[in-house]
Amino acid sequence: MSKLSESLSLVKKILSEVRMYNQASAVLNFDMQTICPKEGMNAQGEVDAFLSNKAFVLQKDAAYIEACLYIYDHRDELTDEFDRCLAESLHRDYAREKNVTPEMQHERSLTYNKAYVNWLEAKKSKDFGIFAPSLAEVQKIQVREANLNEERKETPYDTLFDGYEQGLSSRDLDDCFNECKARLVPLLKRIMNSKKKIRTDFLSRPVKDEAQKTCTQYLLETMGFDFNRGAFATTEHPFTTEIGKNDIRVTTHYYPDMFYSNIFSIIHEGGHALFEQNQPKENYSHFIEFNKTMGMHESTSRFYENRIGRSREFISLIYPKCCELFPNVFEGVSEQEFYESMNTVTPSLIRTEADEFTYTFHIIIRYEIEKMIVNGGADVDVAALPKLWNDKYAEYLGIRPAHDAEGILQDVHWTSGFGYFPTYALGNMYNAMYYNTMNKQFDIKSAVLAGDFKKINGWMTENVWARADRESPKTWIKNITGRDFTPTDFLDYLESKYSEIYEL
Amino acid sequence: MSKLSESLSLVKKILSEVRMYNQASAVLNFDMQTICPKEGMNAQGEVDAFLSNKAFVLQKDAAYIEACLYIYDHRDELTDEFDRCLAESLHRDYAREKNVTPEMQHERSLTYNKAYVNWLEAKKSKDFGIFAPSLAEVQKIQVREANLNEERKETPYDTLFDGYEQGLSSRDLDDCFNECKARLVPLLKRIMNSKKKIRTDFLSRPVKDEAQKTCTQYLLETMGFDFNRGAFATTEHPFTTEIGKNDIRVTTHYYPDMFYSNIFSIIHEGGHALFEQNQPKENYSHFIEFNKTMGMHESTSRFYENRIGRSREFISLIYPKCCELFPNVFEGVSEQEFYESMNTVTPSLIRTEADEFTYTFHIIIRYEIEKMIVNGGADVDVAALPKLWNDKYAEYLGIRPAHDAEGILQDVHWTSGFGYFPTYALGNMYNAMYYNTMNKQFDIKSAVLAGDFKKINGWMTENVWARADRESPKTWIKNITGRDFTPTDFLDYLESKYSEIYEL
Repeated sequence: MSKLSESLSLVKKILSEVRMYNQASAVLNFDMQTICPKEGMNAQGEVDAFLSNKAFVLQKDAAYIEACLYIYDHRDELTDEFDRCLAESLHRDYAREKNVTPEMQHERSLTYNKAYVNWLEAKKSKDFGIFAPSLAEVQKIQVREANLNEERKETPYDTLFDGYEQGLSSRDLDDCFNECKARLVPLLKRIMNSKKKIRTDFLSRPVKDEAQKTCTQYLLETMGFDFNRGAFATTEHPFTTEIGKNDIRVTTHYYPDMFYSNIFSIIHEGGHALFEQNQPKENYSHFIEFNKTMGMHESTSRFYENRIGRSREFISLIYPKCCELFPNVFEGVSEQEFYESMNTVTPSLIRTEADEFTYTFHIIIRYEIEKMIVNGGADVDVAALPKLWNDKYAEYLGIRPAHDAEGILQDVHWTSGFGYFPTYALGNMYNAMYYNTMNKQFDIKSAVLAGDFKKINGWMTENVWARADRESPKTWIKNITGRDFTPTDFLDYLESKYSEIYEL
Repeated sequence: MSKLSESLSLVKKILSEVRMYNQASAVLNFDMQTICPKEGMNAQGEVDAFLSNKAFVLQKDAAYIEACLYIYDHRDELTDEFDRCLAESLHRDYAREKNVTPEMQHERSLTYNKAYVNWLEAKKSKDFGIFAPSLAEVQKIQVREANLNEERKETPYDTLFDGYEQGLSSRDLDDCFNECKARLVPLLKRIMNSKKKIRTDFLSRPVKDEAQKTCTQYLLETMGFDFNRGAFATTEHPFTTEIGKNDIRVTTHYYPDMFYSNIFSIIHEGGHALFEQNQPKENYSHFIEFNKTMGMHESTSRFYENRIGRSREFISLIYPKCCELFPNVFEGVSEQEFYESMNTVTPSLIRTEADEFTYTFHIIIRYEIEKMIVNGGADVDVAALPKLWNDKYAEYLGIRPAHDAEGILQDVHWTSGFGYFPTYALGNMYNAMYYNTMNKQFDIKSAVLAGDFKKINGWMTENVWARADRESPKTWIKNITGRDFTPTDFLDYLESKYSEIYEL
């Protein structure tokens, strides 16, 4: 056996142990978010940190690192493309973690777990003060690790963001968001001035959890979610987690006076799950199943949530079932009224409940704040953040949170780091581009109306999901669409759709 | 520091790592039984086996073993009683596992996990054939390990049973069960010949899961279950698991046409949970929280389920809430009718649904079969077991399962070993003894009628639970009651209660 094959087989042996620890951690995290009682959380967090540390130490082994570096240096000799991708990602991981000691890694796990527990408590109490010390600790660790990264970028924020969206920088984001603001700000004004009346009175009619659960099952089945290789549960903040190759979990939430919140949460998470369930099997045997970026992932989830889920055709498809499950909600409500109500534009405070149009502003606000938090280093005044948050909402959307739970405390993300939020917006832009490509090959609206998700998922599998773990975002979107990344398709789509709805 | 303190601190350091792995395994097992999708089970089982193996290997470390043996040899010098108990249990573990290699241990985990998956499938398909090869593998491993135990007893079955109920043997069980048969067989005949008519027509009236879930919450709250340190979920086979000191989980099941099944399942599991939630804190810091035997545990769960739960006073306490939650079930049903219906004696096929009277026969049948399976060694004809099972049901209870799912496949226990079943019956006998002791100190029936679980749980904490992890069953029951173990209290109780109900 050559040194290259020997190195590969050593690395894969260790990575399969790492995967065991990671799978256990994934189950622990799922458990903490779904059922673990309050007083049990800390112990659970300690076990998670213990296991993560074991996994980390395995990757600090000198022979392992030597093998990784050897593989990377000889990557051009690898005949298997999946192995070449592994070589690249091993090297990225190495550069990121090289200067992080096991003690620092253990501290990181414990800090994030503690931050999660404090965030839960703070949100419940509507009191940012409970979370503030944790946020400061998370910031300190994130800045330290950005600075320790061997392949650090221009700013600490760029380094962190690159970890989520490899190859993109805050310059790309600034350009992109400037274009968004230039077009969306005047358009939002026109929408707000529109005389069009959209009926929303029925949206808060009460529904039972049991009916929402049945609806969740129905939607996942409709989308083509594989229940033999997945499951769903409820959590405050919906998410998707890959426990293992054959075990993709999604969560949702049931609000008694917002039946549609569950619908779009589960379509969103279901979109993430389809991506995971339909990736190439080779990803697993080559340990690259987590290479796909968050922007790619969000492009999929938001494709299903918005481009499919909020389309006239999808609403038409699910309308009869919704009438059956929620008879009191839909009494005297037409299909057209249901469609319009799911596409109202209303500046609002909660990102996950925001409409498709104002959503981008929620991201811009978070992006501006988190870039400041990270690049501000030791100078950041954590206590001043809630006011900054509220001011930005007033500036961009003309509304102000009444308390922190509907302001800076609403999202879980900052309990474990910074740089994730922009990927949601990028996702919208990626999917607007590939929607147009797909639509040239078959009529998407007809497929949705017919409930033909086999066709849609088939195209996604072949074009969007197949190479996601082997390509960086810019290459990936170009290979799918033949064009360079641009937010224009997304902005055109919004303009066209909402001009029609609001009769502009 | 003396060698003894040094040894103790080394051992405790390693045991705290072992506990981390065990907690992760407990979460994985809970997850597998509650939500893990079908295709994800095998990977989950592999991760569990991997972690169990890591924990096992830690305890195979030469320095650890030397420290354990040193502590045991010098146990009389230990001033802390909890440490002395730890010394004893370390030595029992050592004797049991000394000759088991990490490879054998890993094989054991994988076999049990596979057996669980096959059992689920077999039960669903009502086909013992699917489970038979796994049962044979489990038997082989159990017999091998019984024979490898350094402190093995007279027969392999006695060795395994001693693992659950330290200090008791199959001779004790034979004596006990012979006394049961001598008194219960004629009594059952008299009951069957009684002219008393008990109304049960309303028991199969349909109920919704949602109402059953509310009922579960109500019952656990009534019993004094601490929801900050515990949670509940649903599983096919209800169980209790201690994830950690502050995280005790119980499960139950909801049958739409047997509302009472959930009630008694959750009271039973709630009883287990109270035991765990109310044990001395020192148990954890001394790593002896799992010393309590299964018979002690079942004594508690069955105390709440039967002595409390099926009493006239408890039925009176919960009757109004049941009427409120299940109005269609209780329409025209009096409290007395509810009480009698929960105490009918009917020979039946499913152990977990059996009435309190015939329950012991279900245990005797399992005991006789599993003793034969274990002591039969390589000669056991696994394929012949379903017929043997069915014949024994015909002999003891006069009924015959129509298929394996209501026969030999009904219980999960044999997917991971033999010797557990008799502890259920012993539990009934222990609690009959301490019920009589408690009742001399205060009137239990009045306390139940008043819903005063603080009083009952307080007595249990002080008398039944406090010393359970530091005493072997025979000493423990004598210390609580002042008397040696006997099944007589239990048999007297059954005779008195059912003579009244059936007007014998």
